Amino acid sequence: MYAVIMAGGRGARFWPRSREKKPKHLLDIVSDRTIIRETVDRILPMIPPENVLVVTGESHAEELIRQLPEIPKENILIEPVGRNTAPCIGLAALHIRRKTPDAVMLVLPSDHLIRDEKRFRKVLNAAATVARRADFLVTVGIRPTGPETGYGYIEQGREQDAVDGETVYEVRSVREKPDLAQAQALLAQGGFSWNSGMFIWRVSAILKAIEQWLPDLYDGLQQIDTALETAHEAAVVAEVYRQTRSVSIDYGVMEKARNTLVIPGDFGWSDVGSWDALWEVSARDEQGNAVRGEAIAVASRNCLVHSPGKTVALVGVEDLIIVETDDALLVCKRGRSQEVRKVVERLETEHRHERL
Amino acid sequence: MYAVIMAGGRGARFWPRSREKKPKHLLDIVSDRTIIRETVDRILPMIPPENVLVVTGESHAEELIRQLPEIPKENILIEPVGRNTAPCIGLAALHIRRKTPDAVMLVLPSDHLIRDEKRFRKVLNAAATVARRADFLVTVGIRPTGPETGYGYIEQGREQDAVDGETVYEVRSVREKPDLAQAQALLAQGGFSWNSGMFIWRVSAILKAIEQWLPDLYDGLQQIDTALETAHEAAVVAEVYRQTRSVSIDYGVMEKARNTLVIPGDFGWSDVGSWDALWEVSARDEQGNAVRGEAIAVASRNCLVHSPGKTVALVGVEDLIIVETDDALLVCKRGRSQEVRKVVERLETEHRHERL
Repeated sequence: MYAVIMAGGRGARFWPRSREKKPKHLLDIVSDRTIIRETVDRILPMIPPENVLVVTGESHAEELIRQLPEIPKENILIEPVGRNTAPCIGLAALHIRRKTPDAVMLVLPSDHLIRDEKRFRKVLNAAATVARRADFLVTVGIRPTGPETGYGYIEQGREQDAVDGETVYEVRSVREKPDLAQAQALLAQGGFSWNSGMFIWRVSAILKAIEQWLPDLYDGLQQIDTALETAHEAAVVAEVYRQTRSVSIDYGVMEKARNTLVIPGDFGWSDVGSWDALWEVSARDEQGNAVRGEAIAVASRNCLVHSPGKTVALVGVEDLIIVETDDALLVCKRGRSQEVRKVVERLETEHRHERL
Repeated sequence: MYAVIMAGGRGARFWPRSREKKPKHLLDIVSDRTIIRETVDRILPMIPPENVLVVTGESHAEELIRQLPEIPKENILIEPVGRNTAPCIGLAALHIRRKTPDAVMLVLPSDHLIRDEKRFRKVLNAAATVARRADFLVTVGIRPTGPETGYGYIEQGREQDAVDGETVYEVRSVREKPDLAQAQALLAQGGFSWNSGMFIWRVSAILKAIEQWLPDLYDGLQQIDTALETAHEAAVVAEVYRQTRSVSIDYGVMEKARNTLVIPGDFGWSDVGSWDALWEVSARDEQGNAVRGEAIAVASRNCLVHSPGKTVALVGVEDLIIVETDDALLVCKRGRSQEVRKVVERLETEHRHERL
């Protein structure tokens, strides 16, 4: 069994902590460890480090190697440019097939939070058992806790199996991010889980699916496969990526394939997609303040404060996100952290690369 | 003519910029110059630097000397401990009398803002003209712009004179800070001005008034006078101050004396007593934000931002005071900056001297 960690994200939503050189997964915003470090630590009990691959961009590779010393350097795969998840997964599948043709491959995002790691590994192991049996494309669903509009939804079909206490369903449909009314309707209807972006399949199964549903990408992967471990490898990868269109594995494969299964899991998952989400999952004091660093709160509640090394005084404020770095300070109303993107866009427009 | 600048304040209300070592008047929070620098620059067109005295505490003397290089070092008078304004003024009067027995003495707070400096000097000159004539104790009043509860009020009596277009009134009464209802009543009644803490009198007049109304203080001043320019000076000053009670010149002299006059002035005055007051007097952009440093405001209004050297991003926030220093960050709701004192008190309780 292999794990592929997709670490291509930029994470502009965590500005000013996240930067071009430091995307979200390289930050220690959730705990004392960085998010990628937690992600790797979480799977090491089931997969040895030499079977863990990380796919990332050129500019983050060095820092990843530094943060993950036990992962062999050659397991850090570099994409010359981000083309969404389908090419990323295809590239990793080629590398794994070369080592172990009949391997089962876990695909994991690099930047999610999971509270109950044992339960998480139990679900993954069940998924792997199912994937090992046939050409199934298995995804882990998350039991919804509310009408979230930030996630895709997976509709469960017929119950197909039960493995080690985990129920396996056929996938009836995959839905893009809904609006609030749609999300409420899906929840009321029942039988939906959130799309976690975690997949389990045999290498041969996913490559076969890519051949069927994304033939252009498959052609490109064939060219790369021929060039792997040759002097031309980097040039061929660069050329194939240049010509490949961006496409997600969800849209490109999962929405179209018929051999898809879903195992709903419930292990304290969050994609921690924004400062708001981070407040939600953070430990908070009696006043509802989540503080990294030192804060003196006078009549102040429900704030997120990230300002290590500085004394932060809050006086009469509520529902604020306050994040400080060496060169920048963010003060954002809680509930509006999606708009932090606008700050990043402004900095981009003004070519303020030193702040990006 | 001499000027005495009272620079004894602590200014805890401007934490985290103001510190034990850096009270308000040593800060450049109003303009590019420090407030004491502005105060001195404002009177230099009418009084030469060798006639400017500054009274301060031991811990701020060095920084004052650095900021005011043209003031002779011996003009920086050091009080061993703060005892409010009456002892401070008495001490300065002794020093001036020694140089020029019949001098006129301006007493000025160190930390006020004055927009119209020409108008300000015109009022002071008129006051000096009146003070020179007889033993009058003249104070400059400020024409009220609203029912302020943070200032004392001076009730104008009979019109006594008019000098260079400035009307001089007898003082009918001096009122301590009123509550809102009282302040509204005073404003409706008319004939009141705010107590600015600025005074003009002959040295002999104020020392005579202290002898009459504060005889204990006068005795102490006599002892100091005998010791001035001797080897015992510092020891005698220390001992007299130790024994002297705190008393303001308003309460100790002005409320009791009969030879008091007031000249109402109107020259864009503010005592800038808090971060809130600073926002009020600051230049603001179209969104009402007053920014020292660089700010990117997304849907954010009416904030005061002091964070030199850092990019501050505001997202969806209103009415905040945001002040950043090397070791501390204040985020305070506008209208509540009086409560910044509570932060300072908390730091004192916890013996966090490095942040005070």
